[in-house]
Amino acid sequence: MNIKPSMDRTLSEDEYEQHLKASRELLYDYLPLTDEQWEVFKQGFKIRKYHKGDFILNEGETERFLSIVLTGCTRHYIMVKGEEKSFDFSFQHEFNCSYSSFIQQEPSRFFIQALEDCVLASIHHDFLQQLYQHYPESNKFGRTAVEQYYIWREQREISLMTGSAQERYLRLMQKYPIYLEQVPLKYLASYLNIKPESLSRIRKKLFEER
Amino acid sequence: MNIKPSMDRTLSEDEYEQHLKASRELLYDYLPLTDEQWEVFKQGFKIRKYHKGDFILNEGETERFLSIVLTGCTRHYIMVKGEEKSFDFSFQHEFNCSYSSFIQQEPSRFFIQALEDCVLASIHHDFLQQLYQHYPESNKFGRTAVEQYYIWREQREISLMTGSAQERYLRLMQKYPIYLEQVPLKYLASYLNIKPESLSRIRKKLFEER
Repeated sequence: MNIKPSMDRTLSEDEYEQHLKASRELLYDYLPLTDEQWEVFKQGFKIRKYHKGDFILNEGETERFLSIVLTGCTRHYIMVKGEEKSFDFSFQHEFNCSYSSFIQQEPSRFFIQALEDCVLASIHHDFLQQLYQHYPESNKFGRTAVEQYYIWREQREISLMTGSAQERYLRLMQKYPIYLEQVPLKYLASYLNIKPESLSRIRKKLFEER
Repeated sequence: MNIKPSMDRTLSEDEYEQHLKASRELLYDYLPLTDEQWEVFKQGFKIRKYHKGDFILNEGETERFLSIVLTGCTRHYIMVKGEEKSFDFSFQHEFNCSYSSFIQQEPSRFFIQALEDCVLASIHHDFLQQLYQHYPESNKFGRTAVEQYYIWREQREISLMTGSAQERYLRLMQKYPIYLEQVPLKYLASYLNIKPESLSRIRKKLFEER
């Protein structure tokens, strides 16, 4: 597997400042920084733009960034015997990261690809470690971020362990309709661990029953 | 499902102090506390003893404790249509917690049962929140603990997505032989998402090939 990572796109200074401002607002619940603290914190941010289809991270690369999706959405997938298996999606205002790779600074097991044009606000691993060291309160940010990730993984694992394919599909649609709105069905099927043709059958059946 | 939680067993003062001392040593990498800080921290600890088969947490109960296994091991499982599905195991010196339940203070989706006689060093949720507030450095402890949990969940999810039943079995045995040493096969099968009879077949085949 050898896909060249896409280059970041250039931004005007105005755009850059606007995105930074949005990032601060999004992070505020986790990290209520004073203006002075923000001046330090924002130096570690990088605003990254990607086009639909661009690769944000390749399998085998080490994840250097913990990002927030400012606009767009991404797909995380793993290659299993030549087949792409969707592992996760990140939508607007959610975190986006190959998180185990980021924590351990080891090669990522999966790809991250832009499902639409995307803007990410990304903080570099090394900078975050410095923050953790010098601003103990930033550990609270790190803790709550990874807690959210953890809950998400546990829910997903339980969902894969329980219920029929149709139940998994219905549960996701009811709880997170954004998946049906933004994710192509072929990607959704593998995320739900259903064959694409089975997902089509389930959807047809549910439509006829309405 | 209505299983009465087991009562904690009483301990002599000596035993209690010994277990606390062991907990401090185990936690030291995460939480290098001064003697003075430890005097505060240890007030939030509870040493809990369980007999083999006791229920440490029931489905539907809220997890109040983040624990370390001082001795013994535990099994976490979920009931799916009347069938027990192993979700996790905690061995000696590892964390033991229904972690999403603990973070959100919501009912647990799974049971935690003592696979052997167990001693747990457990810190209460409310006390930990106070520590987070008053000792910012304890957020680092919380962050690194949940990071370890996260990595574990991601590895497990990827392991369930990839490879045949035999590959999953071999990988676990090579990487974590403790599972074969301490976990009865019927529990191991559901953890690997394999039917017990298939696991027996795999083991027989591997044995004959040796």
